[in-house]
Amino acid sequence: MPEYQLYCFAQSGNAYRAALMLNLIGADWQPIFVDFFKGETRTAEYRSTVNEMGEAPVLVHGAKKLSQSGVILTYLAELSGKFLPRGDDRLDALRWIIFDNQKLNGSLASYRYLHSLAKPPGHPAVMEFLKGRIDNALGILDKRLANRAYVLGPEPTIADLSLVGYLYYPPEEFGFDIAAEHKNIGAWLNGIKALPGWAHPYDLMPGYPLPS
Amino acid sequence: MPEYQLYCFAQSGNAYRAALMLNLIGADWQPIFVDFFKGETRTAEYRSTVNEMGEAPVLVHGAKKLSQSGVILTYLAELSGKFLPRGDDRLDALRWIIFDNQKLNGSLASYRYLHSLAKPPGHPAVMEFLKGRIDNALGILDKRLANRAYVLGPEPTIADLSLVGYLYYPPEEFGFDIAAEHKNIGAWLNGIKALPGWAHPYDLMPGYPLPS
Repeated sequence: MPEYQLYCFAQSGNAYRAALMLNLIGADWQPIFVDFFKGETRTAEYRSTVNEMGEAPVLVHGAKKLSQSGVILTYLAELSGKFLPRGDDRLDALRWIIFDNQKLNGSLASYRYLHSLAKPPGHPAVMEFLKGRIDNALGILDKRLANRAYVLGPEPTIADLSLVGYLYYPPEEFGFDIAAEHKNIGAWLNGIKALPGWAHPYDLMPGYPLPS
Repeated sequence: MPEYQLYCFAQSGNAYRAALMLNLIGADWQPIFVDFFKGETRTAEYRSTVNEMGEAPVLVHGAKKLSQSGVILTYLAELSGKFLPRGDDRLDALRWIIFDNQKLNGSLASYRYLHSLAKPPGHPAVMEFLKGRIDNALGILDKRLANRAYVLGPEPTIADLSLVGYLYYPPEEFGFDIAAEHKNIGAWLNGIKALPGWAHPYDLMPGYPLPS
């Protein structure tokens, strides 16, 4: 059996962060498919045996079971020494990981779901509320990347791998083109895409395309 | 000059986490009032000199300037040794802090703002969207606290101090009573309230009441 198991599904940018990290560090891992769209994460069984928070991803490593992508990224970086922020950068990476979860991909995930996956799609007022938050957060990230190759400086860290969570999904799933509208973000996404081991979420995790 | 300065304002549960921690560890600190309701955090000056993310709180400690309450809590716990999660609890605390920022207080802060502070108040569809997320997150936390005094076990940690962020504000500011509707959360809030140095956000930070 591979060393790591990751509960995930192709449409989850939250899970993608963990899957991408595993691939980039060359870990021996396998996905365990979570049937989110059939409600698996909302079942009592999933909540009692996999994750009380009712979310993916969950990383299994021997007797350890870790949830929240920010925790999984931290755990794998400390174990492998790769993408690990050092010194004062440790707390700076955490700052961007929390910002990402709350403000950027936290809003983007809901927006994309309500735009292209939910039936019926989201109410226009909800979309407008989320879009305001997304635009603010993307503006902050784009400005940050104006004079840096990666979020903390010249080398990529887990802060970057968190922030790319939903950003490689196709523009039509959002109804707007993040990379085209934010040039610094676009260049940074290309930089991460060039790292050995990078793969698109739809190629890295099971469940794409959705059954029609 | 006191050892710590905290950019904060009374209505911010995000800032409250940091202010409460400072008080509970007996730190020598003073608040710096942020005039959020006059748009201070959205100004170019605030973003260039205080916090590029346009948020409070920001902790100043000598030459260090830290933002994101989860980062500030981690920093102060490591420096003081108080409310510090140890061993495997370190990543478990981080799990709850990220969950809190993304799912619980992340949604609750917007809901309260749109319910009782914004003019005009939020669109009913947005309120319903946020309320669904809040109810889910409160349910998860209440279940977690069914057989534990604090989120990680018998002792309070920074995970608890993050999660209480918006939970001591009066029920009328939300339009529902969190402690009354979730008995385990209510008992846990009373436990934290009994810690030496606890104070209500409106007593601990400047700017309450708002000028009419």
